Amino acid sequence: MNFDLELGAEVLSRTPATLQNLLRGMDDGWTKPNEGPETFSAFDVVGHLIDGEETDWIPRARIILSGGPKPEFEPYDRFRHRKRNVGRTLDSLLEEFALLRAENVALLRSWKLTPAQLELPGLHPTLGPVTLRQLLAAWVVHDLGHIAQISRVMSKQYKEAVGPWVRFLPVLTDHETPRS
Amino acid sequence: MNFDLELGAEVLSRTPATLQNLLRGMDDGWTKPNEGPETFSAFDVVGHLIDGEETDWIPRARIILSGGPKPEFEPYDRFRHRKRNVGRTLDSLLEEFALLRAENVALLRSWKLTPAQLELPGLHPTLGPVTLRQLLAAWVVHDLGHIAQISRVMSKQYKEAVGPWVRFLPVLTDHETPRS
Repeated sequence: MNFDLELGAEVLSRTPATLQNLLRGMDDGWTKPNEGPETFSAFDVVGHLIDGEETDWIPRARIILSGGPKPEFEPYDRFRHRKRNVGRTLDSLLEEFALLRAENVALLRSWKLTPAQLELPGLHPTLGPVTLRQLLAAWVVHDLGHIAQISRVMSKQYKEAVGPWVRFLPVLTDHETPRS
Repeated sequence: MNFDLELGAEVLSRTPATLQNLLRGMDDGWTKPNEGPETFSAFDVVGHLIDGEETDWIPRARIILSGGPKPEFEPYDRFRHRKRNVGRTLDSLLEEFALLRAENVALLRSWKLTPAQLELPGLHPTLGPVTLRQLLAAWVVHDLGHIAQISRVMSKQYKEAVGPWVRFLPVLTDHETPRS
């Protein structure tokens, strides 16, 4: 499937409600465990998505659209949320993410990007040359990957509880070696 | 985490809204592709979850609770939905799933199962002896696994579109050999 601005924005606009439905008011037993060292709990993922709204996707799109001679992105800090969100509740992070995302999707739509603009170049500090189209597609996939991750990490809390069913529930043995 | 009836029922009760938020009104480009032969699209998953409500979880719980001398489950048909849902729209399946699930969670809560009842035995046609507690935990994990699957299969529609970002988006290379 080719990247389509409206179909992509539709996914982006739905993610906050999906996460609120999965997580709001849920017991810490579902939302605080992770899959091992350097991996994210559901709580961490929501913080990481907030970081993305504040420091990653839209700021990088702005760098590309500014059209400067060297459209190089700032490196992204995957663990910014750890210090930022000490003492916060998950519900308050879900609210904050919803507000930031709504603003950013409205901004994205307001730009009315043309096909030519979607091909404008950026320079990723690790990946090298990319386009605005690839950045926006990656934003959509990033959301979906983290929804999948939250579902997987929650499911693993019942890995023992399902007994012999572990054979028929592959989500319980996905990412036994952490991949993200 | 030990299986807890109320925490588990809470997850079960939220799945229809999560799926509606992810899928209702979405373009077929997101909802109809799968990950390869014998794998499920988002459309297939919703049909499969309906099959679970009608033929799997509650019917098997009833077999266990009836306390007969041989509490053996009927085999489950993973592809029942293919014939059942020819010509149906995804939105109508989402509605139907929400109704069936609401009825089944209400029924589950109405049983007010005791710890002793949760240890009652059933006999799975492939897995052998199981308990009601394991069956109910597996129901919860089954939901979460399929939410993860839908997010993963949707994300893969943009595998080419993200360009070099594929390296940083592990969801795009999960289940390259189908596992479910």
